[in-house]
Amino acid sequence: MIRNAGSIHILKATPQTCFWGFFDKTLPPVLTINSGDIVYIEALTHHAGDAPDLLMDAGVREVYEKVIDRGPGVHIMTGPISVRGAEPGDTLMVRILKTEPRLAYGSNIAAHWGYLYDTFKKERITIYKIDMAAAQAYPTFAYDFKGRPVYDRPGFITAPEPAARETIKTKVAIPLRPHFGVMGVAPNESGRINSIPPGSFGGNIDNWRIGAGATMYYPVFNKGANFFVGDSHMAQGDAELSGTAIEASMNGYLQIFVLKDFPITNPILETDTHWITHGFNQDLNKAMRQAADQMLDFLTTKRKMSADEAYSMISVGVDFGVTQVVDIRQGCHAAVPKHLFIPS
Amino acid sequence: MIRNAGSIHILKATPQTCFWGFFDKTLPPVLTINSGDIVYIEALTHHAGDAPDLLMDAGVREVYEKVIDRGPGVHIMTGPISVRGAEPGDTLMVRILKTEPRLAYGSNIAAHWGYLYDTFKKERITIYKIDMAAAQAYPTFAYDFKGRPVYDRPGFITAPEPAARETIKTKVAIPLRPHFGVMGVAPNESGRINSIPPGSFGGNIDNWRIGAGATMYYPVFNKGANFFVGDSHMAQGDAELSGTAIEASMNGYLQIFVLKDFPITNPILETDTHWITHGFNQDLNKAMRQAADQMLDFLTTKRKMSADEAYSMISVGVDFGVTQVVDIRQGCHAAVPKHLFIPS
Repeated sequence: MIRNAGSIHILKATPQTCFWGFFDKTLPPVLTINSGDIVYIEALTHHAGDAPDLLMDAGVREVYEKVIDRGPGVHIMTGPISVRGAEPGDTLMVRILKTEPRLAYGSNIAAHWGYLYDTFKKERITIYKIDMAAAQAYPTFAYDFKGRPVYDRPGFITAPEPAARETIKTKVAIPLRPHFGVMGVAPNESGRINSIPPGSFGGNIDNWRIGAGATMYYPVFNKGANFFVGDSHMAQGDAELSGTAIEASMNGYLQIFVLKDFPITNPILETDTHWITHGFNQDLNKAMRQAADQMLDFLTTKRKMSADEAYSMISVGVDFGVTQVVDIRQGCHAAVPKHLFIPS
Repeated sequence: MIRNAGSIHILKATPQTCFWGFFDKTLPPVLTINSGDIVYIEALTHHAGDAPDLLMDAGVREVYEKVIDRGPGVHIMTGPISVRGAEPGDTLMVRILKTEPRLAYGSNIAAHWGYLYDTFKKERITIYKIDMAAAQAYPTFAYDFKGRPVYDRPGFITAPEPAARETIKTKVAIPLRPHFGVMGVAPNESGRINSIPPGSFGGNIDNWRIGAGATMYYPVFNKGANFFVGDSHMAQGDAELSGTAIEASMNGYLQIFVLKDFPITNPILETDTHWITHGFNQDLNKAMRQAADQMLDFLTTKRKMSADEAYSMISVGVDFGVTQVVDIRQGCHAAVPKHLFIPS
């Protein structure tokens, strides 16, 4: 079906449009749009304090200064956006048309919540320079985090200390994979919930494929959907091993639709080449199982395959990956290539 | 370094050169080669009985008839090959130069050991036709397995029953990923051990990237290494969800080297584009952890990175996948792209 573009809205990240560290389905929308509208939206990184001279501008600084109601999670979100006509049971379809980094640097932390913290027993921050022309990021300096006993205060600012910034010894180039670590809709659950674990409403999925050219599908749990973005990343590997990606503020152009004819129970990602289902659980075994169940459900309900044929095809042609292992609920994803299907 | 080719050997799959369902480090070699030699080797599928009219020729049939000492595992291996000069502590490097399917069909089973057996509660076999020109496999027919209460007898032969063979409804094309599901060296462990769980000696790793153009590295545990191959596959998705890949007999050309200067503790895979480490454990969480520890070890000992720099690079540029979830010990792998490294 053809879906035409609607109006264009601008949603800058300001103290009035940002919320920090939580989701709450009663949070009032800061923008209301129609299905099909395009939104320019700004996402701010909650790691700008790791190198404030490089990761903050006046707009970022204002949010850090004025949004002091933070937690229990860590991410800065922009929104919520209410979409007219979105009702519980619908699906919100979000096309990511374009993204652009806000500044030329990003931060990665080997954190106390990182996967190998028991090996390293310290926290360390690495600052990456973003080279848009080359579509690469390069580590430029690093320092052990000593600002607090552990890196546990969202938005903590480490004053630049040139002497503490150590140069990088091995030259590496990280291909950019700009994406929104957090994107989703107001949850079904009531109350102020932690922004860290991803769930059926999306949130902190941390799948690096959620970038320009991709489309996300979320089940709608509340009238208006109340969509948000945050936690923008310039690059991440599947697993996000050390605890974060290259965290960097980013602007995006999104086109948002309400679908009445595509019911789902957990976020689904569509790229140019794949359909991708997700599983989330504190136990990686159970995250894997959910991703598998979701893929079987997708192929039988959306592609109308028989369960038997879908199961065999998954085994021989669908790849499962580890999305992340550091967000309380770990994530797995299953990717079916679109080219497996022969037009009949 | 340049390594020249040595002699060429031919190792056909026969009742004398095959063993079935186990590894045993005391099994005598059927061929002895020098480091650098090339071996033409035949691997037979243990699923040829699923459609014997399509998956068996006289050579396959002879092995099925005469190799009756099977188990406790399921795979047919060809070997072992002793490599002169290989000593415990060395590394065996195996270049897969070329592979070719032996016959034009393969079998996938949704097995009782498959990941979603509790959903399907039955076993079903799907036969795929292999189209080498198109580099695709197509499902051609399927049937519910009823030959035994469960598919628990390695090499069980289901007589062709045309009426029971159901046509496939959804047209799909599976890109070929020909590889050896099993490849490895005699284990450190004594006794006759099950061929199903992969381990530090390799064995049933079931990583579909172990195909032509790739190089595998195995730690050597026994004099001569005593290398083997088996369980050849025409295609598999990461996870191998239903319990098997497209199982099909395959011939390969391998060049085998003994390395004295590349000590490792677990199998490592090198492709044109990536270095890949593995983790194996009954618990997927622990398999993931081993793959991560192995990647950190690879980058620090083989690429001489500092642990701090390696850890950050892994988080932002290395992808973790689920190799398989059906081999008793589940598998994860970590893939670092070679292009991350900038020549200095």
